[in-house]
Amino acid sequence: QSSVTLFGIIDTNFGYVDNTNAAGDSKYGIGTSGNATSRLGFRGVEDLGGGLKAGFWLEGEIFGDNGNASGFNFQRESTVRLSGNFGEVRLGRELVPTYRKVSSYDVFGQVGIGMFQGWSNWAGVGTADANGYRQSNIVSYYTPNFSGFTAGAGYGFDEQATGKEGRYAGAFGAYDNGPLSVALSFDRRNVGALGAGTKDNLTVGGSYDLSVVKINALLQQAKYKDVGAASGKYNSYGLGLTAPVGAGEIKAQYVMYDQKAIDSKAHQFALGYVHNLSKRTALYGTVAYLKNKDASNMALQAKQVSTTGPGAGENQTGVQLGIRHSF
Amino acid sequence: QSSVTLFGIIDTNFGYVDNTNAAGDSKYGIGTSGNATSRLGFRGVEDLGGGLKAGFWLEGEIFGDNGNASGFNFQRESTVRLSGNFGEVRLGRELVPTYRKVSSYDVFGQVGIGMFQGWSNWAGVGTADANGYRQSNIVSYYTPNFSGFTAGAGYGFDEQATGKEGRYAGAFGAYDNGPLSVALSFDRRNVGALGAGTKDNLTVGGSYDLSVVKINALLQQAKYKDVGAASGKYNSYGLGLTAPVGAGEIKAQYVMYDQKAIDSKAHQFALGYVHNLSKRTALYGTVAYLKNKDASNMALQAKQVSTTGPGAGENQTGVQLGIRHSF
Amino acid sequence: QSSVTLFGIIDTNFGYVDNTNAAGDSKYGIGTSGNATSRLGFRGVEDLGGGLKAGFWLEGEIFGDNGNASGFNFQRESTVRLSGNFGEVRLGRELVPTYRKVSSYDVFGQVGIGMFQGWSNWAGVGTADANGYRQSNIVSYYTPNFSGFTAGAGYGFDEQATGKEGRYAGAFGAYDNGPLSVALSFDRRNVGALGAGTKDNLTVGGSYDLSVVKINALLQQAKYKDVGAASGKYNSYGLGLTAPVGAGEIKAQYVMYDQKAIDSKAHQFALGYVHNLSKRTALYGTVAYLKNKDASNMALQAKQVSTTGPGAGENQTGVQLGIRHSF
Repeated sequence: QSSVTLFGIIDTNFGYVDNTNAAGDSKYGIGTSGNATSRLGFRGVEDLGGGLKAGFWLEGEIFGDNGNASGFNFQRESTVRLSGNFGEVRLGRELVPTYRKVSSYDVFGQVGIGMFQGWSNWAGVGTADANGYRQSNIVSYYTPNFSGFTAGAGYGFDEQATGKEGRYAGAFGAYDNGPLSVALSFDRRNVGALGAGTKDNLTVGGSYDLSVVKINALLQQAKYKDVGAASGKYNSYGLGLTAPVGAGEIKAQYVMYDQKAIDSKAHQFALGYVHNLSKRTALYGTVAYLKNKDASNMALQAKQVSTTGPGAGENQTGVQLGIRHSF
Repeated sequence: QSSVTLFGIIDTNFGYVDNTNAAGDSKYGIGTSGNATSRLGFRGVEDLGGGLKAGFWLEGEIFGDNGNASGFNFQRESTVRLSGNFGEVRLGRELVPTYRKVSSYDVFGQVGIGMFQGWSNWAGVGTADANGYRQSNIVSYYTPNFSGFTAGAGYGFDEQATGKEGRYAGAFGAYDNGPLSVALSFDRRNVGALGAGTKDNLTVGGSYDLSVVKINALLQQAKYKDVGAASGKYNSYGLGLTAPVGAGEIKAQYVMYDQKAIDSKAHQFALGYVHNLSKRTALYGTVAYLKNKDASNMALQAKQVSTTGPGAGENQTGVQLGIRHSF
Repeated sequence: QSSVTLFGIIDTNFGYVDNTNAAGDSKYGIGTSGNATSRLGFRGVEDLGGGLKAGFWLEGEIFGDNGNASGFNFQRESTVRLSGNFGEVRLGRELVPTYRKVSSYDVFGQVGIGMFQGWSNWAGVGTADANGYRQSNIVSYYTPNFSGFTAGAGYGFDEQATGKEGRYAGAFGAYDNGPLSVALSFDRRNVGALGAGTKDNLTVGGSYDLSVVKINALLQQAKYKDVGAASGKYNSYGLGLTAPVGAGEIKAQYVMYDQKAIDSKAHQFALGYVHNLSKRTALYGTVAYLKNKDASNMALQAKQVSTTGPGAGENQTGVQLGIRHSF
């Protein structure tokens, strides 16, 4: 019996986005991860007896359009774990606990042109992980499920000789019961010179399944403090619907980004359809429209085709048609 | 039942090449991919019913001499596929259809010091893929086999906001029947500033198996247009023989490179022997001689030992002795 | 039956080191490879009949704290092998024969804050491999075991057009019989401009198992010659003890580094405990103290937390608490 499971997803699509720069040029080509992030991973679990288990998870992103021109790594997740009646403790690099659960209320699964973009490095300060998805050097803890209640917390070390730039701390709580699901999370990152500034993310999300349609909501505030001109708030409000239709699913989502720090708003509308050819394979299509107002210069996330903004106050339309294959 | 097949080849050799620079210095050491390109890959196929199949292929090169000092990636192939009675459609990065079949008439399999070098970035314009082997952002289509006839076509997106540098389009047709095999391919790449120039590759190849010996021929023209001083033609003419001897195979090939753009010729002679220890493992040896005339400064391809030219009009001799192990 | 074995280790820890720079700052965070080097690999063996076997080994390091931020490669080992009654021949990149066996007398297994640091690029001349662990472009030979006697030799090609910088040559012999194990190795590397200088490593080690405790000794001289001011000797003397206690093992080691080239000494004391949760999984803890004298500025090796010196003549204390999980 092997102690390793090899797994992955390849999601590749035709993508089109107009107004990909201030000159108004459009781009089209082969993009990746329109329905799920392409990945390759190795994971395993060992039963140590007495309810105790050890495990590991190594997972890296795949860029199917160019064969990972920048090289392959395991930055999606690299953890070693111990779990038991007490819950689970993990060490390494992974999605932060304050993202893992609450991000599930984005009906586009945090990928592609329809995705909720509240998690972003809005003010451009801090490390690459300041977008809020993942953290290196993190220890995290997840509780067992108590009648639908779950919770978790994490601490990411800054590993600085002086200061605390890159440090992370956060916690979440969630409740799932029948058709209802809700979650709340809060985290803080130390950003800027010596980590003297902070980026706080407060997120609340929920869904209710009416069987013919499932309603999702996601509200988030990203607040930058003590980082000079970059200080300020970015509020994101998302409302999404999913509805099963035969072998497929229709998805629709509206997100409003109230970028108070720059006194500007943006509106994102997305409609998608996923057609399952099997449990492992699906075809999908998404259209999205992003309306920037005033100084806002947000972009649709058509990975590996275009992710750059149209210019302040300009709009962007995008299409993705692709295939997702899991193994 | 696992949905993934893990596969690969390690091919490592002792290599020697004289005249590796204008000073006439020779080089020797441990090289890679003398008989087949060293690789590691993951692939799988899923039966979707009704003759339809989904699949994926991830494959990266292995440099056994230094452990992939520049990192591991999947630039040899990263595709997701759908196939059925209609043929096969692939998305991602891979060998272009105009190379895959017709390159098979090189008796040295496009590796090592004996290889046919018509596919090269002769004029040094365009992206790394301008050598003509592979293409990122490509969609390709392969027909089913109709009584020996097969064909395919591909289109590689440039993904430029302005211009079309890096765009690829090409098609091939082939016929295999008993001892006879022939193929023809044509492709165009947009190269140079904004892709205003073109590199066209026209290739025809064939083989005839006389049982005691198999005769191979490969003729190719690479034509650069509208790229200033780099414009011009490069014609390559190859003639190869293979003959089974016991558990092994003898290979011999002559290639003449008529570099019309620089009004210079080069002649390459190669002799090789492959001794199979099993279906998976072989020992091999190759000797090759490259005769540059006038301004020609071509080099023998002793990967990871020496691939640099001896200087205009100078000659080069090379030897590779190695082992190829598949898994 | 698959021809490939997928294997690996993830070893992640909490690490702390004081005096990590001249300002006396301490560092703490998530480190890697405190008890064994984290790795992911693919290997296989094929029986060719008649006692002959072919095989391969691809293995790369895993940095579980950041998911291999610098990319994944196979620089730990990339070899193809042939073995039989004559012994084994290997081609590629791997641990040099003069390190493989004799380094086993370091009771901390050449990882973490307790490790014997004789193998180092003391004078800072030569390539990255001048630390003495590994070599690219190497061919090596290992004898069969003759009643406890084993030996091996290797030659690493420099692959230079002129000069011989990076060349390696070395051999070892060893004897294992019941409680006794001894080994001796010598190697030479060509370092500095054109490889005109040399770095010689002479190492002798041994262990004796008294059942309740096992005594290990490791003596090494690294001698730099003809590299100007960097010439000189570095002698390292290690004495280690291991003792099984229940499901675990206690380890203690003292190493004295007599850096004659800079007329300075350093003393390293380490104490560790490994608690096995299963054959595959263990928890561990190590404390270490490094006392630099005069111009010595050595550092404890708390990988991915701190490996920098405290300043000349300053001391360093470190702690590692971690988990090692093999698959």
